[in-house]
Amino acid sequence: MAVTSRDVARLAGVSQPTVSRALRDDPRVSEDTKKRVRDAAVLLGYVPSEAGRALSSGRTRRIGLLVTDLKNQFYSNIIAPVHDELEGIGYQLMLHTETADNETVAERLIANGLDGVILATTTVDSVAPLRLRDRSLPFVYFNRTAAYVDADATVVAPSRGLSEAVTRAVELGHRRIGAVLGPSNTSTAQSRELALRAALAEHGLVLEPDTVRRGPYDTASGDAATTELLAMPAPPTLIFCGNDVVAYGALNAARRAGFDVPRDVSVVGFDDLPPAAWPIIELTTIAYDLSGMAREAARLMARRIEEPDAPLAHVEYETSFVERRTLAAAASR
Amino acid sequence: MAVTSRDVARLAGVSQPTVSRALRDDPRVSEDTKKRVRDAAVLLGYVPSEAGRALSSGRTRRIGLLVTDLKNQFYSNIIAPVHDELEGIGYQLMLHTETADNETVAERLIANGLDGVILATTTVDSVAPLRLRDRSLPFVYFNRTAAYVDADATVVAPSRGLSEAVTRAVELGHRRIGAVLGPSNTSTAQSRELALRAALAEHGLVLEPDTVRRGPYDTASGDAATTELLAMPAPPTLIFCGNDVVAYGALNAARRAGFDVPRDVSVVGFDDLPPAAWPIIELTTIAYDLSGMAREAARLMARRIEEPDAPLAHVEYETSFVERRTLAAAASR
Repeated sequence: MAVTSRDVARLAGVSQPTVSRALRDDPRVSEDTKKRVRDAAVLLGYVPSEAGRALSSGRTRRIGLLVTDLKNQFYSNIIAPVHDELEGIGYQLMLHTETADNETVAERLIANGLDGVILATTTVDSVAPLRLRDRSLPFVYFNRTAAYVDADATVVAPSRGLSEAVTRAVELGHRRIGAVLGPSNTSTAQSRELALRAALAEHGLVLEPDTVRRGPYDTASGDAATTELLAMPAPPTLIFCGNDVVAYGALNAARRAGFDVPRDVSVVGFDDLPPAAWPIIELTTIAYDLSGMAREAARLMARRIEEPDAPLAHVEYETSFVERRTLAAAASR
Repeated sequence: MAVTSRDVARLAGVSQPTVSRALRDDPRVSEDTKKRVRDAAVLLGYVPSEAGRALSSGRTRRIGLLVTDLKNQFYSNIIAPVHDELEGIGYQLMLHTETADNETVAERLIANGLDGVILATTTVDSVAPLRLRDRSLPFVYFNRTAAYVDADATVVAPSRGLSEAVTRAVELGHRRIGAVLGPSNTSTAQSRELALRAALAEHGLVLEPDTVRRGPYDTASGDAATTELLAMPAPPTLIFCGNDVVAYGALNAARRAGFDVPRDVSVVGFDDLPPAAWPIIELTTIAYDLSGMAREAARLMARRIEEPDAPLAHVEYETSFVERRTLAAAASR
């Protein structure tokens, strides 16, 4: 393109670096000057070359977000706040989906010229955090963490919410309690299972092995596991689900098996995604500030890029119990 | 980084341009050479600079997808196939959300160094297509088109599905039929309304003005509109919804108002998103190949970038009627 930042600088009466700063919305440039530069750029039809900008700053102002499955409703509820927060602080979001091979994911992230990556799919044995650390590509854990590489993280503290839920369940007469947990190699499934078992122990209860299932955090997995649990001679009267998306599957399985929720079986989710409050769902669940947590991960990422030596931050989000239609008095069997 | 493509070229025994082509997976390079280059790159720990690549080719291999709201389930069902298709043909997806000001959106898209943009939020009066055309940034319409700028497009042909739905509704005794349509300035709302009215006319029926509502394609809008319709002295016995996401809102409103679906009121959606088939929802709806349509838009975008003079393609997706629980015999009132 013929028009360069020099032309814009001349017309606006500022230096060339000021032009780039103004167009980046750098706070060091006054609003007045920004307007002058923008007007000059529009008048001349100037479009900054992002590639040129990246070469001169060594930064692309692009941040990756690694998710497993873009169709999964859990992820669609974090993509929006991460995107909006990053846009507000001058970064662009690049979505990446995980393949089976973690090593390849790390290489792809590194090759894509990102300034940093928010990891939302980490397993305790993921290779990606190691590879990213070795290549000095900054990253932040969202929700799930790996065991052996420390980094900035935003995580959920499940104990309070689950403890309140169990107390209420016991009041309602539930004794035979089942669970459809997330994958064993995720920190979220581990911490929720621990918190659930601790809460049950407070009331002298246990998760009996025959009532526990584990699988991916998706609707199909919740459906399959619940179908199995409800086919048992003595099904649990209450099923704790690894998250809401799994709980939707549990509700579907119950409906298909002819079990009325909550008369015949109660279901409790985790996350309080928007559909949990819908009148046609009314899912009892564990709530926390998911949007806030996603926004915080975006902010931590930007801070890490801009201040590489900032102290590590682990931000925990507290949980609370939200009682809705899907939890009621234990079915007598 | 110390390692350059020259080092990789030397170790692999090829020219520097061959290194870039091999790492871009260019079909002109043999699989053998590609492997040799990749091995050399891995051995040396070489990571190509994307910014350098963009400067030398004039392309960024990034394609934008413009959506209104990342939380809207309709969009989460198109982001995944667009992402996957683009990744398969060597492009990266950049998400962009629309703000109130279309002019700004176009400027942002242009400034972001994209090779092209898939527009999923177009209104018939959008300014963005004009601006993009003036700046020669290639774009493809997904689902919605603008009236006055032609471009490659993938769209839905609603007539067959809606005609089948209306025929079945009439068989079931529905005569007073309402509709919660999308925004009047979208080509999708216009074509669905035309198709619905034409199908009703075949049976000597009309959409009476008092039973028609219009609003955004979201759950809140479907909920509010249906709440109004059901509060009328003579509510419609069947409500056609602009899409499934709107229909979820209609189901919520009916539940809240104490109307049993389908005993007291029937609801029909449009899109057949995955939850429509869930046992706890079982939404009667209009289906088409949404994933295929999203993938096709991605392919059309890549083709337009690579062959700017290719003839314009308008790909229409046929619809069919899917009958589930939410449609039943008309309530007698």
